[in-house]
Amino acid sequence: MHAYEESPFTRKLAAFVALSKDELSVLERLHQRRRSFRVGIDLVHQGQSEQTAYILSQGWVCSYKIQRDGTRQIVDFQIPGDFLGLRSVLLRTSDHSFEPITDIQAAEVSAADLLEAFAQTPRLATAILWAASRDEAMVVEHLVGLGRRPADARMAHFLLELGARLLLVGIADKSGYACPLTQYHLADALGLSAVHVNRVLRHLREDGLVTFRNGHVTFDDYDRLIDFAEFDPAYLDQAGPVLL
Amino acid sequence: MHAYEESPFTRKLAAFVALSKDELSVLERLHQRRRSFRVGIDLVHQGQSEQTAYILSQGWVCSYKIQRDGTRQIVDFQIPGDFLGLRSVLLRTSDHSFEPITDIQAAEVSAADLLEAFAQTPRLATAILWAASRDEAMVVEHLVGLGRRPADARMAHFLLELGARLLLVGIADKSGYACPLTQYHLADALGLSAVHVNRVLRHLREDGLVTFRNGHVTFDDYDRLIDFAEFDPAYLDQAGPVLL
Repeated sequence: MHAYEESPFTRKLAAFVALSKDELSVLERLHQRRRSFRVGIDLVHQGQSEQTAYILSQGWVCSYKIQRDGTRQIVDFQIPGDFLGLRSVLLRTSDHSFEPITDIQAAEVSAADLLEAFAQTPRLATAILWAASRDEAMVVEHLVGLGRRPADARMAHFLLELGARLLLVGIADKSGYACPLTQYHLADALGLSAVHVNRVLRHLREDGLVTFRNGHVTFDDYDRLIDFAEFDPAYLDQAGPVLL
Repeated sequence: MHAYEESPFTRKLAAFVALSKDELSVLERLHQRRRSFRVGIDLVHQGQSEQTAYILSQGWVCSYKIQRDGTRQIVDFQIPGDFLGLRSVLLRTSDHSFEPITDIQAAEVSAADLLEAFAQTPRLATAILWAASRDEAMVVEHLVGLGRRPADARMAHFLLELGARLLLVGIADKSGYACPLTQYHLADALGLSAVHVNRVLRHLREDGLVTFRNGHVTFDDYDRLIDFAEFDPAYLDQAGPVLL
């Protein structure tokens, strides 16, 4: 087995397309320009016009927007298998920034690389469009969550979504996952204060639902947590390949 | 000139890709199965698994999610040139519903149609990925707006964004545009009550910024409105083709 068959990006796309040998080798070429980035140093800046995207293969990243008043809104977190800045390769300027939360490894991809890959295998284009659609569905869920869900349910929903995403690329199981996020990350993503995040996590732990401690999320009662969060994972669409 | 060269979808993609004759004829084929829908009757239901998308050629649509408590969150509005349910053609189930706000005309597109089009012209795949990325950038802007912008600025930003989108497909100019939205649509989209929408619109009108009356949005002072809303249209990325 080649290294690329193991890549989280390949694992993720395989949830949508049953990949052929040819498609796997096109994916391999997309992974050629491997780069490492250190925690805390932005890969792509909001407003930047350099047209490069990355496929994350190891580590965690957060994408955020800085408001004119200087406050930061975290848009989402990227985990292995996710694109970083697909929009910045297609749109003229990046509409947000990417900061590694841990040291990361990623493959650099240009617009020309994508175009070449799409020419070789149109199914791959559909798969990447699927992944982009799934990302948009997640942002929509966060929009709805911010508008409608109370803080406890919002946190529970968020921890379950992360778990489902990590499960898809093989770095979580139903008992939980390693998670490098701080309470400040959670606060900026969920529109809560750090103190409020603390209180919400204590409630969820004391209710026997989920424990987030020492860089690890443990699902204490997975089914009850899903019920509490009203979590329906259909929007993540990860039940197995649609295109055979 | 053929009808498809005039289609709003073609006009929109032309902002990203300088379309060749071959690409225009592939686009024509995507427009073959024309359908009409009446105001108020949903095209795609949340949870529906039929894999059909539409390219809107005439009229306005709103996409929304129904919460478990029965409340409706409007995710966005679709105008001519937009995809309806691109996600429902790619993901297994639709994560939201589409309701025509006016009578509409749209072309039906299946996953197979898309795959065939991508095989014929990979540049078109990139262009559609561009359009999907732009849609996601809009949802991110709405997320940020809901979290951070006061009601008056949120409304101003929303009316400017719609104006820019309509301008791209040739049905607005800098003085304003025809707009079939009701105050209930605005309320559900912006997270305000209908009474609050009324008050916000009165403020904006009395301040000489923008007037929304009798189905028409008039920009009374475009530059000052942009300043007031802190509207930076870079995320809409409509300054002319990137791929030549």
